[in-house]
Amino acid sequence: MFITFEGPEGSGKTSVAKKIAELLKKNGYQVVLTREPGGTPIAEQIRDIILDKKNTALDARAEALLYAASRRQHLIEKVWPALKENKIVICDRFLDSSLAYQGVGRELGVNEVLNINLFATENTYPNLTLLFDLTPEQGLARIEKNKKREVNRLDLENITFHTKVRNAFLELSKKYFARYVIIDASKTFDEVVLATYEVILNRLKTENERN
Amino acid sequence: MFITFEGPEGSGKTSVAKKIAELLKKNGYQVVLTREPGGTPIAEQIRDIILDKKNTALDARAEALLYAASRRQHLIEKVWPALKENKIVICDRFLDSSLAYQGVGRELGVNEVLNINLFATENTYPNLTLLFDLTPEQGLARIEKNKKREVNRLDLENITFHTKVRNAFLELSKKYFARYVIIDASKTFDEVVLATYEVILNRLKTENERN
Repeated sequence: MFITFEGPEGSGKTSVAKKIAELLKKNGYQVVLTREPGGTPIAEQIRDIILDKKNTALDARAEALLYAASRRQHLIEKVWPALKENKIVICDRFLDSSLAYQGVGRELGVNEVLNINLFATENTYPNLTLLFDLTPEQGLARIEKNKKREVNRLDLENITFHTKVRNAFLELSKKYFARYVIIDASKTFDEVVLATYEVILNRLKTENERN
Repeated sequence: MFITFEGPEGSGKTSVAKKIAELLKKNGYQVVLTREPGGTPIAEQIRDIILDKKNTALDARAEALLYAASRRQHLIEKVWPALKENKIVICDRFLDSSLAYQGVGRELGVNEVLNINLFATENTYPNLTLLFDLTPEQGLARIEKNKKREVNRLDLENITFHTKVRNAFLELSKKYFARYVIIDASKTFDEVVLATYEVILNRLKTENERN
């Protein structure tokens, strides 16, 4: 089963993913916890270009194509082999992050970004996508608390951007309702873990009954 | 005017492009002779990933996405600025090489490769595409002659591949007949240069009369 965790920075999804992977493993499931580029050397090299601070000239469309290329290598080298062995793959951000951030946030268009990603994924969608939803203000407050830094002017300006991205994720949850479950990420860590764990166990049960 | 030179290795198109750029400059035209990644640092970094011999795991779809990303940066940083200044841009390989080599040669599908490239180019096509056409056997003979090496077993095995690519270019010349001119690249260098120069001067004349 291919599970993706989506949501903004500050939603706590990365910590929740780690805890969920632990819990599943304790219960005998084989789990691969990953995120792009996932330690695959080619995908890492692609990621380096995207994240290189010198690359200020990097165009938004080129960036979207690089993310799609990195996604492809990660699928080929890590995700698909694990799924083939019937492992549970939990991926911290995937397709929907590109749709929300590049498609809506950077205004390239959801369908256009979807098309290049479907080329990359050969129409592979996750079986289950958990959206860790909270307001940009709540996310910001959590980042501030964890990093122990002041919220700066840029953070505040970015609230418009992050509101757009949040709304994009909520729209995606309607479009892809069959695979989406929204988790209220404003609750405490333990509450969020519990809610997430229940959703995943239920889905695993349903999948097993189906097979 | 945006002119692309297409065709197989051994077609002589790179040498012809240099000569044509010289001739046009002598006649007072402003010419930019380029090829991807065209010295744009981000496109170079992307190209390095594609050409890195260690990257044997590079998947064909990821490669196609990387070419599209590199193409995008080259357009943004070099081709479009030159066209905006009304220069003649001659680009050694472009979109159609991806369609022929990745789409047909690597069997990813012409339309699929076209789609990701139209995302990259925002539907920009060349105004004129010159196809330097010759048989794989003729191309191979010319490579052998120029590099002064023996044709090896791999070259011969590759004839099937190169025949597929050649036929793909010929199909593209039918699909995009308005921008395509086929040059018989089996002739001598001087004959090929002359034929090419005439086609370009005629096109420039038509463009001027239209404006």
